[in-house]
Amino acid sequence: MLRYWTAGESHGKALIALLDGFPAGVTIDEEPINVELRRRQGGYGRGGRQRIETDTVDVRTGVWHGVTLGSPIALEVVNRDYKLERLEDLPRPRPGHGDLTGAVKYLGSIRGVLERASARETAVRVAAGALCKQLLAPFGITVFGFVAEVGDEKIDPVAGTLVELKAIRDQSELYGLNLQRDDAIKELIDRVGKEGDTLGGVVEVQVHGLPFGLGTHAQWDRKLDGRLAQAVMAVQAIKGVEIGLGFEAARRRGSQVHDPIHYDESKKRTQTLGYERPTNNAGGLEAGMTNGQTLVIRAAKKPISTLRKPLASINLDTKEAEGASYERSDVCAISAASVIVENVVAIEIAAALVDKFGGDSLQEMQARYKLFLEMAAER
Amino acid sequence: MLRYWTAGESHGKALIALLDGFPAGVTIDEEPINVELRRRQGGYGRGGRQRIETDTVDVRTGVWHGVTLGSPIALEVVNRDYKLERLEDLPRPRPGHGDLTGAVKYLGSIRGVLERASARETAVRVAAGALCKQLLAPFGITVFGFVAEVGDEKIDPVAGTLVELKAIRDQSELYGLNLQRDDAIKELIDRVGKEGDTLGGVVEVQVHGLPFGLGTHAQWDRKLDGRLAQAVMAVQAIKGVEIGLGFEAARRRGSQVHDPIHYDESKKRTQTLGYERPTNNAGGLEAGMTNGQTLVIRAAKKPISTLRKPLASINLDTKEAEGASYERSDVCAISAASVIVENVVAIEIAAALVDKFGGDSLQEMQARYKLFLEMAAER
Amino acid sequence: MLRYWTAGESHGKALIALLDGFPAGVTIDEEPINVELRRRQGGYGRGGRQRIETDTVDVRTGVWHGVTLGSPIALEVVNRDYKLERLEDLPRPRPGHGDLTGAVKYLGSIRGVLERASARETAVRVAAGALCKQLLAPFGITVFGFVAEVGDEKIDPVAGTLVELKAIRDQSELYGLNLQRDDAIKELIDRVGKEGDTLGGVVEVQVHGLPFGLGTHAQWDRKLDGRLAQAVMAVQAIKGVEIGLGFEAARRRGSQVHDPIHYDESKKRTQTLGYERPTNNAGGLEAGMTNGQTLVIRAAKKPISTLRKPLASINLDTKEAEGASYERSDVCAISAASVIVENVVAIEIAAALVDKFGGDSLQEMQARYKLFLEMAAER
Amino acid sequence: MLRYWTAGESHGKALIALLDGFPAGVTIDEEPINVELRRRQGGYGRGGRQRIETDTVDVRTGVWHGVTLGSPIALEVVNRDYKLERLEDLPRPRPGHGDLTGAVKYLGSIRGVLERASARETAVRVAAGALCKQLLAPFGITVFGFVAEVGDEKIDPVAGTLVELKAIRDQSELYGLNLQRDDAIKELIDRVGKEGDTLGGVVEVQVHGLPFGLGTHAQWDRKLDGRLAQAVMAVQAIKGVEIGLGFEAARRRGSQVHDPIHYDESKKRTQTLGYERPTNNAGGLEAGMTNGQTLVIRAAKKPISTLRKPLASINLDTKEAEGASYERSDVCAISAASVIVENVVAIEIAAALVDKFGGDSLQEMQARYKLFLEMAAER
Repeated sequence: MLRYWTAGESHGKALIALLDGFPAGVTIDEEPINVELRRRQGGYGRGGRQRIETDTVDVRTGVWHGVTLGSPIALEVVNRDYKLERLEDLPRPRPGHGDLTGAVKYLGSIRGVLERASARETAVRVAAGALCKQLLAPFGITVFGFVAEVGDEKIDPVAGTLVELKAIRDQSELYGLNLQRDDAIKELIDRVGKEGDTLGGVVEVQVHGLPFGLGTHAQWDRKLDGRLAQAVMAVQAIKGVEIGLGFEAARRRGSQVHDPIHYDESKKRTQTLGYERPTNNAGGLEAGMTNGQTLVIRAAKKPISTLRKPLASINLDTKEAEGASYERSDVCAISAASVIVENVVAIEIAAALVDKFGGDSLQEMQARYKLFLEMAAER
Repeated sequence: MLRYWTAGESHGKALIALLDGFPAGVTIDEEPINVELRRRQGGYGRGGRQRIETDTVDVRTGVWHGVTLGSPIALEVVNRDYKLERLEDLPRPRPGHGDLTGAVKYLGSIRGVLERASARETAVRVAAGALCKQLLAPFGITVFGFVAEVGDEKIDPVAGTLVELKAIRDQSELYGLNLQRDDAIKELIDRVGKEGDTLGGVVEVQVHGLPFGLGTHAQWDRKLDGRLAQAVMAVQAIKGVEIGLGFEAARRRGSQVHDPIHYDESKKRTQTLGYERPTNNAGGLEAGMTNGQTLVIRAAKKPISTLRKPLASINLDTKEAEGASYERSDVCAISAASVIVENVVAIEIAAALVDKFGGDSLQEMQARYKLFLEMAAER
Repeated sequence: MLRYWTAGESHGKALIALLDGFPAGVTIDEEPINVELRRRQGGYGRGGRQRIETDTVDVRTGVWHGVTLGSPIALEVVNRDYKLERLEDLPRPRPGHGDLTGAVKYLGSIRGVLERASARETAVRVAAGALCKQLLAPFGITVFGFVAEVGDEKIDPVAGTLVELKAIRDQSELYGLNLQRDDAIKELIDRVGKEGDTLGGVVEVQVHGLPFGLGTHAQWDRKLDGRLAQAVMAVQAIKGVEIGLGFEAARRRGSQVHDPIHYDESKKRTQTLGYERPTNNAGGLEAGMTNGQTLVIRAAKKPISTLRKPLASINLDTKEAEGASYERSDVCAISAASVIVENVVAIEIAAALVDKFGGDSLQEMQARYKLFLEMAAER
Repeated sequence: MLRYWTAGESHGKALIALLDGFPAGVTIDEEPINVELRRRQGGYGRGGRQRIETDTVDVRTGVWHGVTLGSPIALEVVNRDYKLERLEDLPRPRPGHGDLTGAVKYLGSIRGVLERASARETAVRVAAGALCKQLLAPFGITVFGFVAEVGDEKIDPVAGTLVELKAIRDQSELYGLNLQRDDAIKELIDRVGKEGDTLGGVVEVQVHGLPFGLGTHAQWDRKLDGRLAQAVMAVQAIKGVEIGLGFEAARRRGSQVHDPIHYDESKKRTQTLGYERPTNNAGGLEAGMTNGQTLVIRAAKKPISTLRKPLASINLDTKEAEGASYERSDVCAISAASVIVENVVAIEIAAALVDKFGGDSLQEMQARYKLFLEMAAER
């Protein structure tokens, strides 16, 4: 059982993630984690804070001589912009944030809520996901996220292999898969920013190289589709989640949705066991389990809730109408969202892999993976 | 902490739900639960099985003299069509179902998977949800689900009060909110059925009367939006979940999304505490917490995976190409889906209510609710 | 992850256990479960109710053609003495029971608490444990419980093999391991019963055939010693739990406690991997993990709380001093306790086995077990 | 729901605890936490390491201006003796430790296991417990632990009020409640140490000021006695746990065990609600719930497993017989154990308090506590 929680405030000392149940024997490299952290801070449309900080991870526990011990792993991202103790409360709750709701629920300050509710917290979820990818890699599993839409503009992906598409994404300031669309969209972001307004968008995450049988159909709270939906919807500002065709599936007929099953003996020894599907409308999940195809999940992010041109709000002390408070913010953070969603998906996939193949040591997991492929091929 | 699991196979002896942490002192009436069970079996486009069975609930534990004891509650829905022991295995996995994946994962039969993966299991989740509504009612909380789309046809709701809309829904064979649309859509279902094909759709669930502060922003796995997304995505055949504007929120600008905050002193003593929002694009959830507005969640259901005109599949023993197996099935079950999603949402809301107000006794919860309204009004 | 909960009241319709995560492919036989249920009802010193009912299990879900499916398993033990709806509340809380505490906590009746708090509930925990033993058996794991003390009388076990000792236990009306002690102790029980008083005792449970490495040292809530202690202490009337030497370990010096490690090449291919321990003071658990030796756990049961010669209590309505209410009860149930503790231990061991070797199918678990023995032997 | 996990190795960078669900509005003082950390490092019979380090806590998250926010709280205790990266593996597993078992289970090094299994980890559990006491204090709840036995020597407590006994304990180098016993026992420790041997003992923890109704009888895994037993047994080196009379209860008759119920109107408005018990053999817990009396729990600690005079072991590489490895260690750490058990009990009590009274804010919890006393008094 791979579990994790985070702690930390936006302007506090640090953000911390604690992962319990991470297998022993995994070689950990901090640099790829830091790359993900920098990617989260990048993307076109970001404001000042991302330039103040360059996040790096400190693996504080669970590793000896570069290899995991099977002990819990604590990751820390220090806030270089630590100033919480010098900050005051905010008087005017910002619509779209947890300011009003949290202050009422906890009978406390707005500051006390926003500091934790802030998307700053996702830095350490990204670090945790990047760590989990180092467990997935030895199994040939790759998690790949990109931006599919910015505001009402689509970025239709060009054709290409996973390697080619990754290269394109890493070249794009928007983290999209069609560089020819970038200029028009950057212009849109600039225009909207000048108007004091903000933008959201849609991200897609694919997981390549998955074996059969992660997740289960047997109990509602162990279905992998449900777990992924929770992890993704629990990312700040996400308001929609789709698997495979998603809402489009609802609008087609059955014969245009369900993916036929073919058998190709020559692929019997691969991760598909030879069960090939000419389409992948299911997005790699049937009955809450992976089916050997690429997992596809999409998330809708609402526009940033802090607007330079403030929304109508009230002063919480006087109850008088006033514009919402403004804290330094971005115009568009959809590129960051693609990194965040990619990484929370990576954590859930790692957890499902541990559920299926055990969590004591990588060595044992790999032997079991091989064993499963053999047994399943004889099924 | 209100928790639940289910057990039971489609053609087994019974379906069972066990709810742990349900408060004491709630008067339980079986009839409204049975009404929900019948509603789940109804709707236009259902096949033969729904006529064989009329589900009724048996509350087997946790109640004395019609009132809950605080003990776990076991609900049972007997399968009148019990015949599992006489059934054979299926040879040809049906695309869209868990047949192939489950048989591989568990190194077993297709029958063993489909019997549990079947949407039949949702009967007892509906019973559990209908039970939870009897906890929600004393707090003035109403959960209301309906069909918003069938295939590529929309059912735009007419205007009306909650009571009026409920009456319309209960009159509609489709469980929609616009009776004038029903004939055209029933015709569509008939046509598609004749072609041996199937349909899905979109359902919407609203929760009225919610107080501030269910859920929390503080930890990813306790955010109410994430929990709802998990519960809904874990319903058979659901491939997408939206809260509030959902994907539409991603396509608008911030100023067109976030809901302004007004204050109306005259409503200080109501469940909104006077914090009124002229729009509700957030769907009642900000930062993973309820904000006093109506909660709005939508789900996309794929078309039924069992087609009379079978999809391409293989024989799992010979690996030869053959059409998928056919088990008696429906053309369209979107009406049922609206009942199911409504009820799994009800369970999550009840769980969140217990988290906020405690789970020992209704009497104490109600006193605490009143106390919270008073303390929050003075915040 | 193997999880379970129970539901049901002492005089309600039925007792129900729901096990989630039980592997597929395990052949289930109801008869050995019923044997355990009868053993729980037996033992010297039991009162009338045990003669009214002969408990039998109904496996309501999760099994097809006698083999588990990987689906949740619901077990039901019907109460032949169902009369809850005809029963009244009790006026006078019985010391030692949850009567007073529960009535206060839930602001409700005494009846509502005692019906659930009653040791009657353990019937279905026994059924769940007996089911789990059918998962343990293919791995050569045997769980064996017996009575070690009755009141202040010890039953010192005779020497013998596991098979011989089991035969003795099953011959003893006390479920002890020394038949020569039985007469004296039965006389004690008779004498105490005539005085209107009650007796408790101490039970011991051993688990033979365990592999290395169930449980873990890595996180407090996954240590197997902690999990066992919880499961055992959560049995009605248990007030103490010991592993291995237990309290005696506290009173000896280190050199007289810790078990030396020897190596015997000839046993390399057995479950001890050749690591032999001349003593087993640790009771098979070091650092929260099984160490290849026999697991030994003991539990202290307090005397039955319902005395024919009632204890001083009050009338909860008038607050006047009155003797405690009397519900039909036993003089001594220590034999039953040995069955109950044996079976809750079996559940925890099964859960730990699933944690280590996975929970999809017995076939895969067994292949992994073999794989582990090979890899561990090469460590 | 108050939850916690720890991370960190004995010679790693730091020990970290993450508490999730700690209420907002609690004023936190680091000094009392540091006092507990120093107490854990003290006691007669400790070795060199305790003199190297003086542990202090760093509250890294969840607090603003000295008050909790309702966010997760991360506590860090830095290891001043950080040198893990310079350390080598151990060749010879030490009996009584997890060395052999863990190395086999994880197919890895002994070092990788012992660093996490070490009792050093308890430092941060103590910090977490000391934090939880700051939540308990406003409710008048005090957790008080002391040493009851050292090896085969008892320390019979003198009579006194809680304040007086606390003063005695804090004066005693052994953390016992009878200063006249200290010299003889210190001599024993010295003598045993000179012989290269080690000692264990028994600790007792009392919780004063508890209200009715923490924990529940309703489900096995929510019973407070089970939860306490898990938390305590999961402390390194604990082999036995008793509540109230414990094993002694098994040896007495019912009439000598169960605590009569009296009613004293004058105490109706206190935390006992007037339900007075002349004895407290149950140790404050009946049916898994607190009953308004003092909670009493005892734990048996085995002698330290690292002996200067090494136990028989093997070389894990060659399998040749060799003495166990020796790492710097103590002769007797029973005083530390009293601090550790005291603090893990404090965490469980805080968790149970949050379960009963909610976990959003201290302000709301206190209002609910008052409300409960009123409602319960009218029961």
